[in-house]
Amino acid sequence: MTTTGAAVGRGQHARRRVLSAALEVLTEVGMPGFTMESVARRAGASKATLYRHWSSPSALLVDAMDAEFRPSPDLDTGDLRADLVTLLTGLATGLTGSRFPTLMAAFTDAAERDPTLADLHAELTRRRREPLLRLLATAVGRGELPADTDTELVVDLLAAPFFYRRLIAHHAIPSAMPGAVVDHVLPSLGGG
Amino acid sequence: MTTTGAAVGRGQHARRRVLSAALEVLTEVGMPGFTMESVARRAGASKATLYRHWSSPSALLVDAMDAEFRPSPDLDTGDLRADLVTLLTGLATGLTGSRFPTLMAAFTDAAERDPTLADLHAELTRRRREPLLRLLATAVGRGELPADTDTELVVDLLAAPFFYRRLIAHHAIPSAMPGAVVDHVLPSLGGG
Repeated sequence: MTTTGAAVGRGQHARRRVLSAALEVLTEVGMPGFTMESVARRAGASKATLYRHWSSPSALLVDAMDAEFRPSPDLDTGDLRADLVTLLTGLATGLTGSRFPTLMAAFTDAAERDPTLADLHAELTRRRREPLLRLLATAVGRGELPADTDTELVVDLLAAPFFYRRLIAHHAIPSAMPGAVVDHVLPSLGGG
Repeated sequence: MTTTGAAVGRGQHARRRVLSAALEVLTEVGMPGFTMESVARRAGASKATLYRHWSSPSALLVDAMDAEFRPSPDLDTGDLRADLVTLLTGLATGLTGSRFPTLMAAFTDAAERDPTLADLHAELTRRRREPLLRLLATAVGRGELPADTDTELVVDLLAAPFFYRRLIAHHAIPSAMPGAVVDHVLPSLGGG
């Protein structure tokens, strides 16, 4: 048991080192330089070891992004406005950090030339939208929002301004922005 | 006069060829390969000629972006909703094309590593926001929107979902989206 535990521990540690190295490589050289070889070199592992765990650089990348930037856990205190502000504050914090926006920008550009990466970026985005979507669906379910609420569009309206500010307009995200965005979007939805 | 006209014509033609070559180079190889030399080669011009007109690759890039993607002309029919939908439809059309989103993505990524390009991208974005901002300011001026409307935030709310769909979520932009976005944002502004 002890031996197995230690082996698993070592394996987990090595796995985390590779995932961390993957994001370092991506942040520094962008997608063009992101190869199994460059990640192996950074992690001090062999390419063969990487290929034993990940079938392709894309597969490695998805795991690395998921390990570092877990989607927010589900949240439902019953106060829709407060819960939306909490989730958007998490998004704003991520986009105010240095690593998440740089990686999103690298995906954004590389996806233009690589359909596989575009699908992968779409999937990462889809997963990160889920807590917001579920929160809105729950509010629809309890009659707080109208049954015909276009929850996908509402998530766009709520989340997009933060990405846009940071990656397109290159402006600061003030701490009051999550509340202001929610207060601009919620009233138009009607319901009660 | 004829000679001057022809000379100006030739000059203008050469200028357009260089600006067009600049965007081709940027689209194909991204920002890392965007040099005066690569653009000169593509345009069939000398590097010296390029430097006579543009002091740096950044200056050339701004001109090239401005020449190809002019911000929408000002618009004010007196019907705020219709005018907003018209401007956002123009944005949606640009983002549905192949060239504008690819170039925006290249800027987005390169800006992470180059503060000069980040400023330049911010300036390009600022100029493209102006028609929307002026439209909202006019509506505030005639009392159609409240005096305390945060027009900058409202432009974020209106424009951001289109960039987000195309560059982050990698989803189609349906033709009804401009109207739907406006109808989600306008009611919360109050006024009347």
